[in-house]
Amino acid sequence: MSLRVVGVDPGLTRCGLAVVDVAANRQVSLIDVTVAGTPPGTPLDARLLKIANAIDSWLDQHKPDVLALERVFASANVSTVIGTAQVTGVVITAAARRGIPVALHTPTEVKAAVTGSGQATKAAIGKMVAKICRLDEPPKPADAADAVALAIAHGWRGAAAGSNASASAAGASGSSQLTGAQQAWIAAEASAKRRAVRR
Amino acid sequence: MSLRVVGVDPGLTRCGLAVVDVAANRQVSLIDVTVAGTPPGTPLDARLLKIANAIDSWLDQHKPDVLALERVFASANVSTVIGTAQVTGVVITAAARRGIPVALHTPTEVKAAVTGSGQATKAAIGKMVAKICRLDEPPKPADAADAVALAIAHGWRGAAAGSNASASAAGASGSSQLTGAQQAWIAAEASAKRRAVRR
Repeated sequence: MSLRVVGVDPGLTRCGLAVVDVAANRQVSLIDVTVAGTPPGTPLDARLLKIANAIDSWLDQHKPDVLALERVFASANVSTVIGTAQVTGVVITAAARRGIPVALHTPTEVKAAVTGSGQATKAAIGKMVAKICRLDEPPKPADAADAVALAIAHGWRGAAAGSNASASAAGASGSSQLTGAQQAWIAAEASAKRRAVRR
Repeated sequence: MSLRVVGVDPGLTRCGLAVVDVAANRQVSLIDVTVAGTPPGTPLDARLLKIANAIDSWLDQHKPDVLALERVFASANVSTVIGTAQVTGVVITAAARRGIPVALHTPTEVKAAVTGSGQATKAAIGKMVAKICRLDEPPKPADAADAVALAIAHGWRGAAAGSNASASAAGASGSSQLTGAQQAWIAAEASAKRRAVRR
């Protein structure tokens, strides 16, 4: 009884893609991680298409129960926020085409879930990701480690009470799209007398 | 010898989709116009999927030579800019999958091209669109008229000298993706001793 989570750290230059299995006892197995993207000088349509093809392949190959994605804010880095938002549009659509629920998490939520501090550094996140996944060293580049951290945070939040982010995941999908694995997970949650936040 | 242009006024709630044929003598024929989208309360993944399906069908049905899209700025309306950027990511990817070049135009460029004033009101744009397309009244809602205006502006800019926006269209595609219609258009441009800006 485990939940397969794809984590995506969106970006045009480096888009981190991770897949983890999270067991009901919170043990995490890193299945695969990579980085897709193109150099900044590449035409925008070619950049988005490359990431679209990468995410399509990733979802078809790994068949996740849920996709966890970093939430983009309009107040973020102005020079990259539009491109990053465009990537998230492509990623969310790829998941929606396959009936895979999408959960949006803020960087602070992910840092807090994985390291215990919402202000954790990139290095601290990488170190904790390596520890949690029993790796010799952090996945590189940092975008890869961030994608793994997103997936872990989402998998763990499914087992935690009262997560707004997971609630927003439910809002973005609907219970009719739940897979058997998700339903089993939620049943386990309920039996543990915790509030099930991923409908 | 005409250029078929799809114009897209991006948005999650109302995404205007237009297709026009622009003749070498600048005469415009409105082929079709519609508005796709979902109410604001709809889950984000369902909203993006609906627009993705609409743009896919639109491009497959109308087989444009080029897609003209409103450029999104990070300084735009903060409450909607992320959603609008997500839609543009989906639209650009849909065009890229089909080898259709994408041209980005600012609202000011479009207003200036269609009405002669970069500060034109919505009503003035609708009125000019109706006049240019020989319609009894402006397409409604305003998002539909804006999509037509985008397509007209792009078609006309192909016939105008020194358009940066059209140059950016070329940058987003590359001459190897030009269709026969586009090449014919460019040949006509060159023979008219005007600078061809759509490579």
